Amino acid sequence: MNGMLGNDLGCSMKPLLEALRGGTPWPPPVWLMRQAGRYLPEYRALRTKAQSFIHFCLTPELAIEATLQPIRRFPLDAAILFADILLVPHALGQEVAFVANEGPKLVPIRDAAALARLSTASFAETLAPVMETIKGVRAELPDDVALIGFAGAPWTVATYMIEGEGGSDFENIRGVAYREPGFFAALLDRLVEATSAYLILQGDGGAEALQLFDSWAGVVPASLFESAVIAPTARIVGAVRAAHPEIPIIGFPRGAGSHLKTYVEQTGVDAVGIDFMTSLARVRNEVPESVALQGNLDPVLLRDGGAAMANETRGILASMHGHPFIFNLGHGVLQTTPPEHVAELLNLVQGARK
Amino acid sequence: MNGMLGNDLGCSMKPLLEALRGGTPWPPPVWLMRQAGRYLPEYRALRTKAQSFIHFCLTPELAIEATLQPIRRFPLDAAILFADILLVPHALGQEVAFVANEGPKLVPIRDAAALARLSTASFAETLAPVMETIKGVRAELPDDVALIGFAGAPWTVATYMIEGEGGSDFENIRGVAYREPGFFAALLDRLVEATSAYLILQGDGGAEALQLFDSWAGVVPASLFESAVIAPTARIVGAVRAAHPEIPIIGFPRGAGSHLKTYVEQTGVDAVGIDFMTSLARVRNEVPESVALQGNLDPVLLRDGGAAMANETRGILASMHGHPFIFNLGHGVLQTTPPEHVAELLNLVQGARK
Repeated sequence: MNGMLGNDLGCSMKPLLEALRGGTPWPPPVWLMRQAGRYLPEYRALRTKAQSFIHFCLTPELAIEATLQPIRRFPLDAAILFADILLVPHALGQEVAFVANEGPKLVPIRDAAALARLSTASFAETLAPVMETIKGVRAELPDDVALIGFAGAPWTVATYMIEGEGGSDFENIRGVAYREPGFFAALLDRLVEATSAYLILQGDGGAEALQLFDSWAGVVPASLFESAVIAPTARIVGAVRAAHPEIPIIGFPRGAGSHLKTYVEQTGVDAVGIDFMTSLARVRNEVPESVALQGNLDPVLLRDGGAAMANETRGILASMHGHPFIFNLGHGVLQTTPPEHVAELLNLVQGARK
Repeated sequence: MNGMLGNDLGCSMKPLLEALRGGTPWPPPVWLMRQAGRYLPEYRALRTKAQSFIHFCLTPELAIEATLQPIRRFPLDAAILFADILLVPHALGQEVAFVANEGPKLVPIRDAAALARLSTASFAETLAPVMETIKGVRAELPDDVALIGFAGAPWTVATYMIEGEGGSDFENIRGVAYREPGFFAALLDRLVEATSAYLILQGDGGAEALQLFDSWAGVVPASLFESAVIAPTARIVGAVRAAHPEIPIIGFPRGAGSHLKTYVEQTGVDAVGIDFMTSLARVRNEVPESVALQGNLDPVLLRDGGAAMANETRGILASMHGHPFIFNLGHGVLQTTPPEHVAELLNLVQGARK
């Protein structure tokens, strides 16, 4: 684990939280998106114990173990709750299935009647196991490792809800957003409320930081970015902060590099995740000194390891020294990544000179 | 057709070329990416006359007709050569096939040995029919309609050459670019040379403007953007301009909104295409007054027509009045677009008040 750094009050603070509060611990704290997952043999073994992926996420015994697996192997500065962004539509009553090798499939919601069938009646009950997972993980985490909770941002969750799958051409959601602005706004409203409630519950359970994944922010038409990304994110940040002012919030609008300055200024996030297509050095110049940046090694470099990974890692570190920073990938760990490359990367980051 | 506007010398100039040279004709000239294609019934009928898509592109009689079909139907200000960006790897000897409903499939090139098997021996001969198509189209175009030639930019063509298909996760090309920078640079060099030669031939044949499609510029890792996008594009612009200083060049780095300022400053393009995720108003503030912008209506709005299309179109026009501007989509016409929506859009654009 990183050397502990004292804060101004003289008591120790977890490095991840120090960076999220505007501190500049160095070497920087590090965790990896999808650090729990199929690249780990112990994850693949664990996954066989649940019939469905949703059952896996909602069984605390299994989700706790999946969350902790990478922490047992590697000196990471944070664990991230093992869950999925589609638990929210599932808990609202939309049919969600995970099909092997095909990804998630949902019965699409494209009109007011389908939207009206969603219900919060069993929302908290359905998601209660997530709180159990958070409590269970907190009880087992080392003192200097922080626990990050998360949810999908409304635009990204809406893409799955409307398209019925991920990574499509997004022509259905764009059509609906333009043709039926009332319906689309109502769907985003439902997601703002549900996501805020879900993140507040995660904070109640003991999550120490929260990340909003807006994985498809890069395909939002320019004329919809304010209403579909900025405003819903700002409302969630406001609601969560009102309930848990102590919990920092990381936004990750993937692919929206040209909007980052506006995103940071107008959503109120404490930190922003940066994808690998975007230059950390450029964003550092665009955001206030207090806003932490998180990213952005290309996961292909982690998969391949070696000199190329080392060079890029050194470049990232050099560009971020002196600014609040959390080392991470610019997208999730690839399934084909050898676990020993993660150890190699952590050596590089945690060996960075002060 | 738009009302003709005199230039300073008092002789008429095609509106598209006037805008590309820094003029501000209003209403602005308009053409649409993929204006020739499957949404037109006459295109679908024509397409059945060729056994393969490559044969279709390389048969002047068919390609001339495909290029002219939208001009016969609609009062567009430009025709764009009917061809494909993969004609360049095809002419270099890579196996390229277009599989119905699956898109292009190529035998991938991922090492120096495979690269060495490419050859320019029959490059000019293979592509000679394209010059015949250009001459044939020029002979039939109305006086005020310009002919645009085009090619794929090296990064984008390289993605197909290395991945073997389009729209993948781009993990092969990123891996190769990082691990084998020498091989990757050699591939880009080949493409710079071949693409420059191809565009110069198009200019020789009578193309009046040229567009470089960098459709996958949005997935380039930040640390590779200069070497994979900026430098190869600048070299092509330099080579084409040396041969044809009179032909304006439009760059279209789709998805690279955060790099547009740098792209315009460092590649030397005369104009830049803007995708629908990027705000025209923002880019207008970032680029010199003389650089024309082209875009950026979401093709979903053209597919759906009606009030939403009209509102967005008016917003685009209002944001670009007074700057050199070419109205276009932010991506290609969708196959499901009713042709009458194109007529509706042209009415809106060409009815814009001065």
